Amino acid sequence: MRYHKIPDETVRRLPIYLRGVLFLSEQEQQSVSSQNLADFLGANSWQIRKDFSYFGEFGTPGVGYNIEKLAKQIKKILKLDVTHKAALVGVGNLGSAVLAYPGFSIYGFDIAAAFDTNPKKIGKKIKNITIEDVSNLRTLKKRNIKLGIIAVPRDAAKQTADALVKAGVNGILNFSPCYITVPKKVKVITLDIATDLARLPYYMPAG
Amino acid sequence: MRYHKIPDETVRRLPIYLRGVLFLSEQEQQSVSSQNLADFLGANSWQIRKDFSYFGEFGTPGVGYNIEKLAKQIKKILKLDVTHKAALVGVGNLGSAVLAYPGFSIYGFDIAAAFDTNPKKIGKKIKNITIEDVSNLRTLKKRNIKLGIIAVPRDAAKQTADALVKAGVNGILNFSPCYITVPKKVKVITLDIATDLARLPYYMPAG
Repeated sequence: MRYHKIPDETVRRLPIYLRGVLFLSEQEQQSVSSQNLADFLGANSWQIRKDFSYFGEFGTPGVGYNIEKLAKQIKKILKLDVTHKAALVGVGNLGSAVLAYPGFSIYGFDIAAAFDTNPKKIGKKIKNITIEDVSNLRTLKKRNIKLGIIAVPRDAAKQTADALVKAGVNGILNFSPCYITVPKKVKVITLDIATDLARLPYYMPAG
Repeated sequence: MRYHKIPDETVRRLPIYLRGVLFLSEQEQQSVSSQNLADFLGANSWQIRKDFSYFGEFGTPGVGYNIEKLAKQIKKILKLDVTHKAALVGVGNLGSAVLAYPGFSIYGFDIAAAFDTNPKKIGKKIKNITIEDVSNLRTLKKRNIKLGIIAVPRDAAKQTADALVKAGVNGILNFSPCYITVPKKVKVITLDIATDLARLPYYMPAG
């Protein structure tokens, strides 16, 4: 089976489903219906069925989806069936939170290196990671690190992205509130932590 | 005009469009086509046109959307045309990053209070906000704070949500990697910073 042409919006939702499915798996649940998964995640069951249909995962009527199989299949589609090493650039408050965040390993990510420009931080250890000088970014290719996480101040984001691209990174998660341009072969996802807050008032009762 | 029944997925995208539109407005641009906005944001132009059509915003063929009018309209729909005060609970690395994050004010949010349980942190000031003991959460209603931001460790997330709901909050942005249940009248959005990283490998070239 080919896994091409899954809509971007489906790709965006798959990690959310995967997280839910892995959680249910930990509770030793064997199968789940689209309705139960939807209720659990606060999502729409028809949307879940439609999203899963892109990769031919239809479940069994009256039983639902086999959780183990479903998790395996979503991981395969998202290419999360192998471990991905990532490099963090910027170990301020946000970067430190990223290093400490337990949620990355769930998806098979290994934040394997951290970089900063501040001499006071370089050489220090956080969570078994020794903070390195940003000039060491050039070693990423050799270390087989293809993912970069940008958590530097806005003014330094552009040059950080350039350095990551030069070091052979082809995927960047950007936490800086700015727009970054990179060559087409590199995928950038910008995470603005304010955009999620921005849709809350829509749902809140007036007054 | 009634603004009901805008799909959740459209509501999710509107803040992203708004951020882009406000950025272009700062560049003193007067109008923007759906194609240019799409290119700028890495979005789909048909999706933008479809999303805008839900609130009757069609633009002028050959000219595009008037930026000022568009920003005003999106803000109105998202109920961001007034300032919203928010309370942050948990001033660790992530909470400190939230307090320092410049992106909230763009949407008209004012993080007006911060709370922690750590006596060493209580009384300290970050960005003009004096950190308070969590027992002060009960004063939120009086202070007209209806939004809560949870940035506490996973184990404390549930009780923090309960305290926020008891204090009259009706919208919660949750950064803890866990599922929170609240009464139906309260809207919770959980932001797992790992889910965005989780869709990067899908787009990365093999090898």
